[in-house]
Amino acid sequence: MKRTVFYVSDGTAITAETLGHSMLSQFGNIEFEQVTLPYVQTDEQTREAVARIDRAGSDDGQRSIVFSTLVDDAHRKILAQCNALVLDMFSAFLGPLEKTLGVPPNQKVGQSHAIQNYEAYRIRIDAVHFALDNDDGARTRHYDKADIIVIGVSRSGKTPTCLYLALQFGLHAANYPLTEDDFDDLRLPKSLQPHKDKLFGLTIDADRLAAIRSERKAGSRYASARQCEMEVRALQALYNRYNIPHLEATDLSIEEISTRILSRTGIQRRLK
Amino acid sequence: MKRTVFYVSDGTAITAETLGHSMLSQFGNIEFEQVTLPYVQTDEQTREAVARIDRAGSDDGQRSIVFSTLVDDAHRKILAQCNALVLDMFSAFLGPLEKTLGVPPNQKVGQSHAIQNYEAYRIRIDAVHFALDNDDGARTRHYDKADIIVIGVSRSGKTPTCLYLALQFGLHAANYPLTEDDFDDLRLPKSLQPHKDKLFGLTIDADRLAAIRSERKAGSRYASARQCEMEVRALQALYNRYNIPHLEATDLSIEEISTRILSRTGIQRRLK
Repeated sequence: MKRTVFYVSDGTAITAETLGHSMLSQFGNIEFEQVTLPYVQTDEQTREAVARIDRAGSDDGQRSIVFSTLVDDAHRKILAQCNALVLDMFSAFLGPLEKTLGVPPNQKVGQSHAIQNYEAYRIRIDAVHFALDNDDGARTRHYDKADIIVIGVSRSGKTPTCLYLALQFGLHAANYPLTEDDFDDLRLPKSLQPHKDKLFGLTIDADRLAAIRSERKAGSRYASARQCEMEVRALQALYNRYNIPHLEATDLSIEEISTRILSRTGIQRRLK
Repeated sequence: MKRTVFYVSDGTAITAETLGHSMLSQFGNIEFEQVTLPYVQTDEQTREAVARIDRAGSDDGQRSIVFSTLVDDAHRKILAQCNALVLDMFSAFLGPLEKTLGVPPNQKVGQSHAIQNYEAYRIRIDAVHFALDNDDGARTRHYDKADIIVIGVSRSGKTPTCLYLALQFGLHAANYPLTEDDFDDLRLPKSLQPHKDKLFGLTIDADRLAAIRSERKAGSRYASARQCEMEVRALQALYNRYNIPHLEATDLSIEEISTRILSRTGIQRRLK
């Protein structure tokens, strides 16, 4: 028997999904069919959502679960009529928040991931372009404008981490790949030396690294266990020698790597 | 008088922040001081959080607001002792969810943004590298592997959109910039013609485009009102001629553009 989960929102549904994923991760063994219903902004669209939710419940033979971030009072009442468990963020939290703040909510729909101001939008786009222009050691002359320079061996997660830091926090994140040449004499590359305070290192388990590289170039020296072990060991020695803060990233998601970097370095976000 | 908002989590705090931003966007005119406390995983760390929250409340002269996604029962009880408004996601929703599902939650901390499985991680990283390799028309020979090809004029938001589609949904998103050459005879570039069904267009207001381009190359022909108007008009004519689905992106955030593309095209996410 399957169970359907709905994410219902008057905006992107990103908040509803985030909330739902977080709750459902507490019930790791159950498989859910997930359906996202974004931009539900009228009575009629809400009634259509209710019909769809009820249909899934009958088809499944058990009640669906609904994570809702509908803001509008009237729409929340319509949604509440469906035959499912409705977990409604605004019903749960808006009352106490309004009471504490002493002002009424604006009830404007779709606010959560809307552009709040053009300045914030610009910061974010600039950060994305900074990450792209300064990816993989492509350029090093803008490192004075970097908030952070992520270093590590090839395929240890530097690029996705920098893009996430840019998109989520607006940070200027460059990344630079350390290679065999750098390991020979255990010295930081010249282009990094003036920016030692901005460096943050990633490490990765050698077996995992070999597996990742094999997907790309199976059978190559680059992907061999021996090469990966050598690089990982030398990398650690380099971090130790220069006292570079670093993180073992093998079992971490991009979000975990990024937020740990923030928390370890104390770098201030450009986007709040 | 300022008011402090805390995001308290045993993991990245991304869920707590998302929840909080969404709630606070309903009170758009109030300014908050925001403090994120991630990776709160022990009794002692929870007590430190309480102390910090209470200190902010005394300093501000008014109670702080706390968005919490702590999973552990004991930690939630410690946090509840602080002198602030605590909006606690698991206290609100875990009970009803457990009752409906008929199984107890696993109470494992930091699950929400942890790697759930290596396959999902791989899909995501592959998608990021696909977006980078196929950014800005750099390569067109992998378009048969693309889920979507985002088109539009230079600086209309194609690149950030593709990166977001990759990171959030695991989609293989390429993007291709349309330029004057393409507008002269109002024909789709040759490299796009075989993939017409994968195209999605962005449009942007000419004044906004001129403002964005001016930040980059002030005073240039590229950034002139006349040039931007010409490109925007020709772009619309091209979309109409080839019947390409498109979206006016001027006042939309990257999240809004991305989720609207998903919802308009019906493309299935690779990551759920």
